[in-house]
Amino acid sequence: MRIAFQGEPGAYSEAAARTYQPDCDPASCPAFEDVFDAVEQGHATCGVLPIENSIGGTIHRNYDLLIAHEVRIVGEVELAVVHNLVALPGTTLDHVREVYSHPQALAQCDRFLRSLAGVDVVATYDTAGSARLIRDRGLATAAAIASARAAEVFGLDVVRAGIQDHPDNITRFLIVGRGGGAREVPGADKTTIVFTLPNVAGALFKALSVFALRDIDLTKLESRPIPGRPWEYLFYADIAVGAHEERCRRSLVHLAEFARSMRTLGSYPAWRREGTGSTADADASVTP
Amino acid sequence: MRIAFQGEPGAYSEAAARTYQPDCDPASCPAFEDVFDAVEQGHATCGVLPIENSIGGTIHRNYDLLIAHEVRIVGEVELAVVHNLVALPGTTLDHVREVYSHPQALAQCDRFLRSLAGVDVVATYDTAGSARLIRDRGLATAAAIASARAAEVFGLDVVRAGIQDHPDNITRFLIVGRGGGAREVPGADKTTIVFTLPNVAGALFKALSVFALRDIDLTKLESRPIPGRPWEYLFYADIAVGAHEERCRRSLVHLAEFARSMRTLGSYPAWRREGTGSTADADASVTP
Repeated sequence: MRIAFQGEPGAYSEAAARTYQPDCDPASCPAFEDVFDAVEQGHATCGVLPIENSIGGTIHRNYDLLIAHEVRIVGEVELAVVHNLVALPGTTLDHVREVYSHPQALAQCDRFLRSLAGVDVVATYDTAGSARLIRDRGLATAAAIASARAAEVFGLDVVRAGIQDHPDNITRFLIVGRGGGAREVPGADKTTIVFTLPNVAGALFKALSVFALRDIDLTKLESRPIPGRPWEYLFYADIAVGAHEERCRRSLVHLAEFARSMRTLGSYPAWRREGTGSTADADASVTP
Repeated sequence: MRIAFQGEPGAYSEAAARTYQPDCDPASCPAFEDVFDAVEQGHATCGVLPIENSIGGTIHRNYDLLIAHEVRIVGEVELAVVHNLVALPGTTLDHVREVYSHPQALAQCDRFLRSLAGVDVVATYDTAGSARLIRDRGLATAAAIASARAAEVFGLDVVRAGIQDHPDNITRFLIVGRGGGAREVPGADKTTIVFTLPNVAGALFKALSVFALRDIDLTKLESRPIPGRPWEYLFYADIAVGAHEERCRRSLVHLAEFARSMRTLGSYPAWRREGTGSTADADASVTP
């Protein structure tokens, strides 16, 4: 199975693709848009996209792109992020004068970076791409913040491992497949919708009531601006119920009674944490 | 009145400071953190901080900084953003090979930028700072995306005015003053709070009910991750009621009954749109 991801080989998104489907064929794409295009045009079976990090928050760009493309969410994967300082073999911490990485990764290693005196921090488009840059240019006094896998791919050494400020640094990725709508994914127990509301008092409370009154848990609510309608919002909600369940269907019919617009972005198995197995066997009997 | 803002003279934040207080003394700061520090340490009476743009969405960094500092929100200002392509006198559109600006401004002029062939787009830390860069380095084949005021400040010409994709491009700024708590601002009819909830089903619905059941309108709800507690959130809410009103007090007491934590970030006059006067005279009789 070909899975498109953004970044160079060794990117965290590539690791997420392998976590979702260990024997997949990961296809590197320069930008998030290219991942969506690859799926829409059938060049890849799925795409993997970071949607939320437990420290940095939501990756809003991917929510915006999700509704601009004919794709549906077919799964999710969580990945513990372990940032490492990586450099050319022979380069030690004392040699390092420049550190390259994606702004999010730099922010997540802020404490470590501030402990280094006289070092310039340079923002780039990608963690693994920074490792590649150091290899390609043979920069002996530079280091990148990237995964251990990226170091391996580009022949670099890990100078310092696990340099992120917070040990609980987790990124959640969405797996998207071709075609819109809410076709059934086996084991689906989570549904993502997007809706807009009339600009009246209490509208959001009313929207959440269609779930709360049916004991459906809301695991995430995110708002994004609607271009051209200042201070009106698109709401993205994750609800802990599969689209095939009757109470899910009823809650969405109820929401549609007063929502201005409503769309299901996908219904899929929620990620099982703490080593309870991959999404693929979420429904099988697994040891907790 | 000294008002701290982030950016170079001519930045949109400086215009927001002048909109709030026409005869103020705007003090330029390199970063958002420096604006908070200037207010906290008494170097400025207030600080002005962009919090939300009608196209790009929330500026999350400033929500994070708001709770890390002893400041309170004392007002808000909305400003229509008009982006211009500015360059050294004599430089025409045909000469331009590089366009410098803040990533948000570049994104907001995406359509215009894509209409230019063979031009490199370079992200910088500031719109007005990009204008300054062109002046300081005498770049005759470059242009910046910035305000008309920034062009004026740095002796540049407006090559093309109003190049943003959406005409309704508005940024909302918060005005912060020294000291925490919810001291009364005259004419306050809007209150911003931040709270955390127990990790149980229906908690957010319950939280919104304390406002909805008292007919208090929620004008914005934003969530941010809590570092170290994956997929738990801090919620920032704007409610359309002054903290001095009895139903506001009662709703917050009600919320505190089950919220894990709750803090009022300020109570202040909501911005009046469409030329109904500045916040300062929001309580005066104004023509709608």
